[in-house]
Amino acid sequence: MEIEVILTGSVLSEDDVKDRTVVVIDVLRASSTIATALNNGARSIVPVADMAQAGKIASNLDQQSYLLGGERGGENIEGYHLGNSPLEYTASRVAGRTIIMNTTNGTVAIDGARAAEHLLIGCFLNAGRVVDFVREADRDVTIICAGWRNRVSLEDTLCAGLLLYRLWDGREPDNVSDAAHIAFTQYAHDRDDLTAALQRCTHAKWLTQRGYGDDVAYCLQLDALPVLPYYRENRLVLFEDERVPILN
Amino acid sequence: MEIEVILTGSVLSEDDVKDRTVVVIDVLRASSTIATALNNGARSIVPVADMAQAGKIASNLDQQSYLLGGERGGENIEGYHLGNSPLEYTASRVAGRTIIMNTTNGTVAIDGARAAEHLLIGCFLNAGRVVDFVREADRDVTIICAGWRNRVSLEDTLCAGLLLYRLWDGREPDNVSDAAHIAFTQYAHDRDDLTAALQRCTHAKWLTQRGYGDDVAYCLQLDALPVLPYYRENRLVLFEDERVPILN
Repeated sequence: MEIEVILTGSVLSEDDVKDRTVVVIDVLRASSTIATALNNGARSIVPVADMAQAGKIASNLDQQSYLLGGERGGENIEGYHLGNSPLEYTASRVAGRTIIMNTTNGTVAIDGARAAEHLLIGCFLNAGRVVDFVREADRDVTIICAGWRNRVSLEDTLCAGLLLYRLWDGREPDNVSDAAHIAFTQYAHDRDDLTAALQRCTHAKWLTQRGYGDDVAYCLQLDALPVLPYYRENRLVLFEDERVPILN
Repeated sequence: MEIEVILTGSVLSEDDVKDRTVVVIDVLRASSTIATALNNGARSIVPVADMAQAGKIASNLDQQSYLLGGERGGENIEGYHLGNSPLEYTASRVAGRTIIMNTTNGTVAIDGARAAEHLLIGCFLNAGRVVDFVREADRDVTIICAGWRNRVSLEDTLCAGLLLYRLWDGREPDNVSDAAHIAFTQYAHDRDDLTAALQRCTHAKWLTQRGYGDDVAYCLQLDALPVLPYYRENRLVLFEDERVPILN
């Protein structure tokens, strides 16, 4: 099983994802919010790359069945029901609903990876489930860090490194790609005090300054949610549900 | 002095470079070739982003005064006098000549950074000169790793980490950006056996397989060349020459 890591997920080609298991990581906060929403009973998440697409999809749905969620540049979007804080996606808000989700980096990376054989959403909250799936699927893997506006982000790099560390049982093979080596090295360096390393991330500090410190603490919990968001027919559902017909 | 690091230099904005000292790193091989050519007496290097621009500039110059150099996707360009191997840029070939240079990643990053206050070319060969200049200029700094087709490359990341390690006297400050932390961590991890780390880089292996192993060994020599390529009036010259009028 060959593993590639892409540290900035804004530019993807079909070759990066085709026939592969692909994991999209946007720790702060799209991946964590998607995992939380599905854990709390959302029917599905429809990731969209911009507001126009969100509006178009919403116009075809019954108003009671969906919620609009997301952010632009970290700010809530006027007229949307939900922002990008996972703590907003409680069972009472999301259970049974479809979430149309629009975020700056995360949903763009998901959109670029649609041609994957398996497309999963990963974060610290569900790292264990992701690793189990990747092992079982036994295909070549691409781990895509969403990053921040075409720049590397430390929290996504560390989460990629965590997945590698587990997939490789803590020992880096000889012949790995540059980005995989960098992510593994960073995780191995920081794993003894991962919380401190994550709190120093630029985006974690930015969110904390804006009153989202609880979001940061929440997103950094390892293996807290037993869910695997899986992309199927233009939306993310729980992998366990994949044989259940998807209804709007 | 605030230091930013950009690990993939294909997408740059004016804010990334304006009023700052900018160092563009493309270890394998554009930066190393530029430093070598100037060390061997080339009059100047005109970096261009594509073949059309190269041809246009050449058409305005006396045929004896210039050489066309560079590569596309690592291969030599038909009709060009020189490729992208620093070992081709000997004094007997380049002394007194202007080099019009066209490479896949390096010259694209230089082009994106033209609005910098000071724009330098850095690599292992001239790291000492770069660090001395950056310290003396005492402006905020952006270190741009050219990378490879919008992907991180380990050799450029390690070179950025080396510059940081020297600028910070081996101690990482508390409040650094994500990419600076990653580059510093990688260099600190690999510095005791830097040659082995660099030989494992994907691009180093790719060059070695194609018969360019001598290029790789050459480019990894630390502080071997006492030159500082400096961008001025659309071309790169030795910083020492900056008060000398530039003639074609």
